[in-house]
Amino acid sequence: MSVITLTTDFGIGSPYIAEMKGAILSISSAVQVVDATHAISPQDVTQGAYAIRQFASAFPVGTVHVAVVDPGVGSSRAILLVASDGQYFVGPDNGLLTFQLVAADDVRRVDRSAFRSKAISKTFHGRDIMCPVAAHLCSGVAIDEIATQFDGEPILLSLPVATKSSGDIVGEIVHIDSFGNLITNVSGQQFLALGSDVRVEICGRSFPRGQTYSDVDRDQALAIVGSGGWLEIAINGGSAHKKLGISLGDAVRVVASR
Amino acid sequence: MSVITLTTDFGIGSPYIAEMKGAILSISSAVQVVDATHAISPQDVTQGAYAIRQFASAFPVGTVHVAVVDPGVGSSRAILLVASDGQYFVGPDNGLLTFQLVAADDVRRVDRSAFRSKAISKTFHGRDIMCPVAAHLCSGVAIDEIATQFDGEPILLSLPVATKSSGDIVGEIVHIDSFGNLITNVSGQQFLALGSDVRVEICGRSFPRGQTYSDVDRDQALAIVGSGGWLEIAINGGSAHKKLGISLGDAVRVVASR
Amino acid sequence: MSVITLTTDFGIGSPYIAEMKGAILSISSAVQVVDATHAISPQDVTQGAYAIRQFASAFPVGTVHVAVVDPGVGSSRAILLVASDGQYFVGPDNGLLTFQLVAADDVRRVDRSAFRSKAISKTFHGRDIMCPVAAHLCSGVAIDEIATQFDGEPILLSLPVATKSSGDIVGEIVHIDSFGNLITNVSGQQFLALGSDVRVEICGRSFPRGQTYSDVDRDQALAIVGSGGWLEIAINGGSAHKKLGISLGDAVRVVASR
Repeated sequence: MSVITLTTDFGIGSPYIAEMKGAILSISSAVQVVDATHAISPQDVTQGAYAIRQFASAFPVGTVHVAVVDPGVGSSRAILLVASDGQYFVGPDNGLLTFQLVAADDVRRVDRSAFRSKAISKTFHGRDIMCPVAAHLCSGVAIDEIATQFDGEPILLSLPVATKSSGDIVGEIVHIDSFGNLITNVSGQQFLALGSDVRVEICGRSFPRGQTYSDVDRDQALAIVGSGGWLEIAINGGSAHKKLGISLGDAVRVVASR
Repeated sequence: MSVITLTTDFGIGSPYIAEMKGAILSISSAVQVVDATHAISPQDVTQGAYAIRQFASAFPVGTVHVAVVDPGVGSSRAILLVASDGQYFVGPDNGLLTFQLVAADDVRRVDRSAFRSKAISKTFHGRDIMCPVAAHLCSGVAIDEIATQFDGEPILLSLPVATKSSGDIVGEIVHIDSFGNLITNVSGQQFLALGSDVRVEICGRSFPRGQTYSDVDRDQALAIVGSGGWLEIAINGGSAHKKLGISLGDAVRVVASR
Repeated sequence: MSVITLTTDFGIGSPYIAEMKGAILSISSAVQVVDATHAISPQDVTQGAYAIRQFASAFPVGTVHVAVVDPGVGSSRAILLVASDGQYFVGPDNGLLTFQLVAADDVRRVDRSAFRSKAISKTFHGRDIMCPVAAHLCSGVAIDEIATQFDGEPILLSLPVATKSSGDIVGEIVHIDSFGNLITNVSGQQFLALGSDVRVEICGRSFPRGQTYSDVDRDQALAIVGSGGWLEIAINGGSAHKKLGISLGDAVRVVASR
């Protein structure tokens, strides 16, 4: 069976999600429809982009990821079909697919009317265009029949990148997960390359380095490379976000010993 | 594969939902079980009815929709099996299936003991009767074996209907979605029939007409026909519910120019 | 199709859940992945154990239940594979599988490296070990290839058990569901064995006995054997938790008439 994942800002429990699933299953019932997440904050394209980056690579080759954080629905913004790393991504051209676009093998504009609903709402292209396109892709329709080459410049989010500064790494908190772990934009590779004798500093506080949460006592904080491969600040058995008063955008400095 | 959708007021994450899925998959594992929504407010039959109306038509012919907002569980209230528009709906006789009942091809009472659990809880007919019935329907058991003709008058909700008054349309806000869009009971057809030179008035405020959210500037409100085919008030990039102070039940007037 | 259920404390909408589904579907796409619940409070192993007990038996023989409430991830705690009642349970050795362990046919330690991800994160064994193991089990890999006999003493939660005292039953509130029903550790069998002339007392209040919610007037409380087979306190059409001020751990006494 083929797999389609859904990522939206509709809010968990929204009947709009059910409508998207119905649109897919009406075209092919031999598809596994997976709720990736529907908890993206309304219109928060950046949060959506980070979420998709986090889970996409766990899925099999051929998976179609449908992403609907789409405040410009009904305007002239294009709908993109991006092939990257053996998977497909369908979503609006508003930066939501930034991480896939920078590594894309193929970028298309979804513009063929044969593979969408007969009636297209001006406010719900997820149901009327994106999900039907995903379902037809899973049913074996060739990409050339569904979408033409995108010859413009797709919109890319300008996301903060960790940099080197006098031997240190300077980054920031870019995501907070449901456990309250504070996830940075410092990659595990960057971090580990500085060696084991480093300090991680945020908002004037310094965090010891660990490999697993239980490397520190309960309720103590540590810096760790998380499951997504990024440096994060966590508290063993608690929420770093709640207890440390550190927020999205706060600066992170990994200080190499000298 | 057959499709069964689940609509409940159990609250997202309730293990009761898992029990219903287990009951279905124990009868047939070749069924796609779709969470339509579990976020209906506890015992809010009206909200459940609107949700089911919103998403059902997106699903393929033959889909079985199980609806459990059932404060009268264990009492003498009947369990209905309604055939409407090529789909099946299973739920309590408390008005939850109002929109399907008014357009029903066939209304049955689920009363055959062969197609339910051996032990029937007095408090969870969703798991013990409705889901087993849905799974057996999907497995090809004939409707005549599962349910007999319902010869009573099923309970219908008395829902507000938009009316004409001196050439204007008078309706009300009947639903607020997760984006804070205020959805009325004025159908798109009614609305569009008044022509383009109309004003939409709610609580003393007037809203311009648009076709898509971006027809107005960011943070501005407009009146629009939403994806479900109903007139709604929305704010481009924001929540009309939060910003306008308009609530469920507030009157809506579409004023035709004269 | 095989069935795998997922129970976690990741929070609904967490992309970590999607990663687990991707890990399963990457090994076998012919598996039904069911979200049992992701609403367990972070690190609340006891709540997780009660949830799994509640829904597991509704699933078919052969179902694999993956349970990830795992604050000790990455430490030396074992990962268990428990066979009980014709089903499989995969989770950390921290008490989460207490109810299955006490009735286990077979307890194994998941320690074979062939059936896990190539790269194992120190913080996400749900994705890298437990879900791959579950998917391989569903694909027909023999349990002997995946896991060896567990020869230690698995950790069991010390959960309160209802007891007899001078002919009465003394228990406590152990769970509150999404409707606000207060679920005790007094089994329906224990309760019914006292006969029909009993009083249920909690925090100085006495509750009448009923069989179904509508046995009392709207907004009135009653004691009832719920769908899971446990004595519970409910309010017809309302939340007993909100209205009665009774909490987790409060003592329950079923007083037999003398």
